[in-house]
Amino acid sequence: MSTVTWDAVAAARERIAPFVHRTPVMTCSAIDERCRATVFFKCESFQRTGSFKFRGASNAVASLPPARRAHGVYAHSSGNHAQALALAARLHGLRAILVMPEDSNPLKVRATEGYGAEIVFCPPTHDGRREVAERVGAESGAAFVHPHDDPAVISGQGTAVIELLESVGALDLVFVPVGGGGLTSGTAVALSHLAPDAEVIGCEPAQADDAYRSLLEGRRITEFTPATIADGLRTPLGENTFALIREHVKRILRVEEEEILPAMRFVWERMKLVIEPSSAVAVAPLLAGLREARGKRVGVILTGGNVDITSLPTLGKEGSWQTNSSRT
Amino acid sequence: MSTVTWDAVAAARERIAPFVHRTPVMTCSAIDERCRATVFFKCESFQRTGSFKFRGASNAVASLPPARRAHGVYAHSSGNHAQALALAARLHGLRAILVMPEDSNPLKVRATEGYGAEIVFCPPTHDGRREVAERVGAESGAAFVHPHDDPAVISGQGTAVIELLESVGALDLVFVPVGGGGLTSGTAVALSHLAPDAEVIGCEPAQADDAYRSLLEGRRITEFTPATIADGLRTPLGENTFALIREHVKRILRVEEEEILPAMRFVWERMKLVIEPSSAVAVAPLLAGLREARGKRVGVILTGGNVDITSLPTLGKEGSWQTNSSRT
Repeated sequence: MSTVTWDAVAAARERIAPFVHRTPVMTCSAIDERCRATVFFKCESFQRTGSFKFRGASNAVASLPPARRAHGVYAHSSGNHAQALALAARLHGLRAILVMPEDSNPLKVRATEGYGAEIVFCPPTHDGRREVAERVGAESGAAFVHPHDDPAVISGQGTAVIELLESVGALDLVFVPVGGGGLTSGTAVALSHLAPDAEVIGCEPAQADDAYRSLLEGRRITEFTPATIADGLRTPLGENTFALIREHVKRILRVEEEEILPAMRFVWERMKLVIEPSSAVAVAPLLAGLREARGKRVGVILTGGNVDITSLPTLGKEGSWQTNSSRT
Repeated sequence: MSTVTWDAVAAARERIAPFVHRTPVMTCSAIDERCRATVFFKCESFQRTGSFKFRGASNAVASLPPARRAHGVYAHSSGNHAQALALAARLHGLRAILVMPEDSNPLKVRATEGYGAEIVFCPPTHDGRREVAERVGAESGAAFVHPHDDPAVISGQGTAVIELLESVGALDLVFVPVGGGGLTSGTAVALSHLAPDAEVIGCEPAQADDAYRSLLEGRRITEFTPATIADGLRTPLGENTFALIREHVKRILRVEEEEILPAMRFVWERMKLVIEPSSAVAVAPLLAGLREARGKRVGVILTGGNVDITSLPTLGKEGSWQTNSSRT
């Protein structure tokens, strides 16, 4: 049986409604023309804390049984989950502890602290993070909230597409970026109930294509070296998200690295929306004029807008993007 | 008697409704905290062609008497008015000719051409522009649409604040950037009818403070050398806009140059909105915690989002913004 059902997503929707923003939906005639489709962009970049992650974190925090609330929540994250969990905990009056790598972007550390979380730094290695996180968990008694494999997180992420369908009506295709798979599987579960004929299209950097290969090989691939500017999509699928994606998702598209920043730039310049590189991965196939989209009603979840404007990849002339070396 | 009355703005609203986007209104708790006010941002960056200028241009084109439509419209502009007039003309099936300086930003030239306008280049001098524009007008028989002093343009710009009031209810203060004064005077005329107790606050770069000084001296100052990154605000007031601003606007705030880009960056990073430097001029006083705003309901018109991302001012560390030398 699936770890996440439609009922769980529907319950998440009720549970988090008082806390999340109902984000706007935008359109862009230039993109419609490129792919000859009608495309609706769900702007989770305007979600609280700047990404859809606030939905999942809010649902996880709000779902904690009373006995587990006393000691708060903790997680390890250098990205959007950190800010999301910090604010979700604060809104519920809970302590939040975030384990972050020592070399985290100072802006993200400050933002997470700004939402009232305690930060515990860890060495920027897999083992270092695990050790520190285990110690924090043991010493604090806090409840662990996994960034994408927690069923409550997955259910929360599935709420964005519910709002999208309510706003724009029926869709044929829904494009989402694939990282740990929380959004992809939550969206797929919601769609399988609300619009069984609609298809979720997972979009993944070719340089971090573990979901694509996992589906192909029928086993979850966790050992790989991501080499993508899309820093939110460098993590492998979790056990739960892999199972849900196998069950519900037919297709993962691989997006070449050189398509990502031009897609981001297109959205900035033409749609006037600040989105992060990870979000652009779900836009790139449409900009490339993806055949399967022609004549279709298409949804895209613009997942977030947290990008450090002071250390943007060099924005050179068209076609000559240069990426900074970026931490994974 | 005023050149632009409430009736004209109300008529513009009806006339352009089928063509313009009703742009969304956003809020930002971080800005509310900074100035201890409730601030509503009218996002004209999402307007067609990327700025509020499309409102005025649409009204001017739609207001042309039948006899004057045959030969189309023309204007000189290297900025947002060019794209706005080009699209407005195309939507009405009219020819548009835009006189643009030879050294115009190629992106803006391409965008204007993209809307179907014919471009005629002129030397990048005042006299060169005037000569070429006069020739174009004489040869084409097209109707001239001034970027800010045409009463139909002013009326059109006044429609943004009508929508804003409809969306959010009563306001005490409305902040707008002041360039040629079309938006400022249109907004003031609309407010004087709809909300006579509300005050329009014009915001102007201190390095291009002709409106401030014109009000102070009681005469229109047209000879000055603007030295501001806010490229939309370098023009002097027109005769009509000056008269309307004298009649309706009590205060022009001067914004220091070093406040403009940090305000732009704040809106990009925190609100996830791409705005141009000229728009940031109306945000800066609120970020600085302007005393007069405390406890008030405040509107801000975010005028546009047309910024060349490939030639952004160097986005250095906080507090160390460097501006490129920029053409006027």
